[in-house]
Amino acid sequence: MSVRPETALATADSADADPACTAAAPLPVLGSDVRVPLVTGGEVTYAALDYAASAPALQRVWDDVAAYAPYYGSVHRGAGYLSQLSTDLFENSRQTVAEFLGCRAADQVVFTRSTTDSLNLLASVLPAHTRVFVFETEHHASLLPWEQRADVEVTYLNAPRTPQQAVDTLEKALAEREPYGPALVCVTGASNVTGELWPVRELAAAAHAHGARIVLDAAQLAPHHPVDIAELDVDWVAFSGHKLYAPFGSGVLAGRADWLQDAEPYLAGGGASRKVARREDGGVQVEWHTTAARHEAGSPNVIGVYSIASACKALTEAGFDSLVAREQELIGKVRAGLAEVPEVKVLSLFGDDAPRVGVLSFVVEGWNSSHFAAALSAEYGIGVRDGLFCAHPLVRTLLGSDPQDPGECGAPDARPGERSLNAIRVSFGAGTPDEHVERFVSAVKELVRDGAKWSYRTEEGRCVPDRGAAA
Amino acid sequence: MSVRPETALATADSADADPACTAAAPLPVLGSDVRVPLVTGGEVTYAALDYAASAPALQRVWDDVAAYAPYYGSVHRGAGYLSQLSTDLFENSRQTVAEFLGCRAADQVVFTRSTTDSLNLLASVLPAHTRVFVFETEHHASLLPWEQRADVEVTYLNAPRTPQQAVDTLEKALAEREPYGPALVCVTGASNVTGELWPVRELAAAAHAHGARIVLDAAQLAPHHPVDIAELDVDWVAFSGHKLYAPFGSGVLAGRADWLQDAEPYLAGGGASRKVARREDGGVQVEWHTTAARHEAGSPNVIGVYSIASACKALTEAGFDSLVAREQELIGKVRAGLAEVPEVKVLSLFGDDAPRVGVLSFVVEGWNSSHFAAALSAEYGIGVRDGLFCAHPLVRTLLGSDPQDPGECGAPDARPGERSLNAIRVSFGAGTPDEHVERFVSAVKELVRDGAKWSYRTEEGRCVPDRGAAA
Repeated sequence: MSVRPETALATADSADADPACTAAAPLPVLGSDVRVPLVTGGEVTYAALDYAASAPALQRVWDDVAAYAPYYGSVHRGAGYLSQLSTDLFENSRQTVAEFLGCRAADQVVFTRSTTDSLNLLASVLPAHTRVFVFETEHHASLLPWEQRADVEVTYLNAPRTPQQAVDTLEKALAEREPYGPALVCVTGASNVTGELWPVRELAAAAHAHGARIVLDAAQLAPHHPVDIAELDVDWVAFSGHKLYAPFGSGVLAGRADWLQDAEPYLAGGGASRKVARREDGGVQVEWHTTAARHEAGSPNVIGVYSIASACKALTEAGFDSLVAREQELIGKVRAGLAEVPEVKVLSLFGDDAPRVGVLSFVVEGWNSSHFAAALSAEYGIGVRDGLFCAHPLVRTLLGSDPQDPGECGAPDARPGERSLNAIRVSFGAGTPDEHVERFVSAVKELVRDGAKWSYRTEEGRCVPDRGAAA
Repeated sequence: MSVRPETALATADSADADPACTAAAPLPVLGSDVRVPLVTGGEVTYAALDYAASAPALQRVWDDVAAYAPYYGSVHRGAGYLSQLSTDLFENSRQTVAEFLGCRAADQVVFTRSTTDSLNLLASVLPAHTRVFVFETEHHASLLPWEQRADVEVTYLNAPRTPQQAVDTLEKALAEREPYGPALVCVTGASNVTGELWPVRELAAAAHAHGARIVLDAAQLAPHHPVDIAELDVDWVAFSGHKLYAPFGSGVLAGRADWLQDAEPYLAGGGASRKVARREDGGVQVEWHTTAARHEAGSPNVIGVYSIASACKALTEAGFDSLVAREQELIGKVRAGLAEVPEVKVLSLFGDDAPRVGVLSFVVEGWNSSHFAAALSAEYGIGVRDGLFCAHPLVRTLLGSDPQDPGECGAPDARPGERSLNAIRVSFGAGTPDEHVERFVSAVKELVRDGAKWSYRTEEGRCVPDRGAAA
């Protein structure tokens, strides 16, 4: 099977083909005018460059939520006007998400709280003795849920260094499984550490060729690229609202209904139960729903669900082509800027030129990453992330060392030639203005050239400016 | 053990003792000025009387959420200013909830998505072979999670008809259990069907006297009464934000840490895992957190959690004494009004005069409950609920018949002398103005006396006005 990662997501190409698309402005987001103090005096607008952890709400999403909030009502069996309005809003949101993902007619859209929750739900419905295949490079949310099932065996695949190697590794593992029974592959669409795109379509084809199913962890992909479940031919897709500019506590698992319908409900309670009665032996007999409601027990998070639908509409209407093109421009600026700093090493599995979304991790020779990130925040008003990004085995592979999360800048900065203990991640998206990434690049250069202007110390596990004294 | 349900919750008495408290106005809530159309022409302000399903947001909660939203940032390892602000907000909210519940020093507050989720979490951490004791009168959320554990045996206790009988029934069942091993009692604080208060303190004493633990389902209690975990001496408390005027998708499980710490994490993923590494045999070794984070994998719903903390503060600052007193006045008006209609039968386990919160269910002789509820909505702008309220065995007991949820008003209205198939529930709280319950009482009287002004039909499972023709 031949792998072309650059075509794994159609729009990356269509955007490249149309330079006119690149003129688009960032989408309005909440917080874009928030100003934060600098330790060195004065204040600046906050540059939110931790989208891969959680993105700000689109202004459109907030406006939709605010417009709906006075009409909030109990869903499902409420007889009142607002209950019926809220019920319609909830079920229409399900339809909107199905359209956003290009769901097939028989697919179910289950609302969860997050990608983590979606993948734990899927783990809970696996048929007994399913074999799960997952690369060690996954985020912990897609790496860890499967072994919670005592009757499921997990095969962890070593990190591939090319997309083709990913497919070859998977094919070999699937072919060699014994017994050749039910199997699931879980794969990320875009790495939360490197931002690199994975060859989803090719991995899906490999899975299906070997009688396995596949779930796409689209947490980092869906905010940046259209995800078409039918076109990618994956069995399920999972993503989170809070990375998709809708931080109101909801997520999605969408895809094939059969395993979902056949399994015990994820949560037991009202909403999932159709009929409950005492049995003659004193026990309780339950008839569960077979729709998505089976796994949505409890009052649904209507606002969270509606916010996701609003974000789906906003991204679709803005046009993914122009969003992708604009993000590629930002990525180009960051990569070009970092390339000018020899001390900076960008982390990559598939090579520097691999297609990616707006997520880059790096280390700086001679710096403790937590220290560097704290200085970006305190001296430049830039919010990035430091640590291991909930993907410890991947970061270990990328750093070539046993990763540790020192959790304190009290740990000495790495000396030249030493391996870094953790990394710094910068990430951005549809709401990011050019100025944020430009400020980031300038700040990296200045910090590396001149050092931090302030000294830092550890306070409750955080690296913070030492208010007692300048550096 | 002597049971005094009227003293089970201290504030009910203190409020009764101070008539001055009864002058308080309703707390401002979103939606109080929303107007809805009537099928008979014109429009009215919407009377939201389905608080027991989901309550409107307090204006104060909305204002707090709106003020925070631009400052939203990723929590935990984000190095940026807004990330640190959001992390502080999240952890301070945990502290606020702990204070609201009167938690003991060693208690943990775990944020979930709802009461249903909280009780499913608790079910997941029960030691192997725990015996669970639960009255058949519970909401499905507290009735059903336990049997999801294959290694847990559940004893369903028959509906008691007095609080004393509840305690006696529990004591007998606990004493007779074989083997006399780990046991958990799950009990509701206030019924979601009858609104009646359960003798929580006495049931807790009975549980502890017999070596069992107890969890309080406070979904319907916490919005109406102070809940003090130490004073009631329960081991855990569960409640939902969306019934506590904070409908942003979060809930709470608070209480003893030991079973929580000892069990496998509820969700596997980032945030719950402290360290993840490949083992030499190719597997993965995980070290999980032992704090509340152990069961909170995935990015937390910061807005949902903060909204709960905001509601806790708002209720505390408003003063539960005056809230309880005001609600008791509303209950008095509803009960007095319904008592004047012989065709109305209020459902009750413990008798008409049992202490209760603002939740009442009833049936109307000669009426299909769905039809009646639809007429309240369409002709009076009043939102109540019809059905079985996710408490089928209890409703069966209360109706004295096999409950069914006809789901359509096409089903014939009950004839005089026939048992009703389902019921109508009216519920209210801190945001309810007197006019809403007055309108409700008038509407019930008018509907019973004059019949509906319109005809109704079933559409997609809902009982709705037949737009084709007046009655």
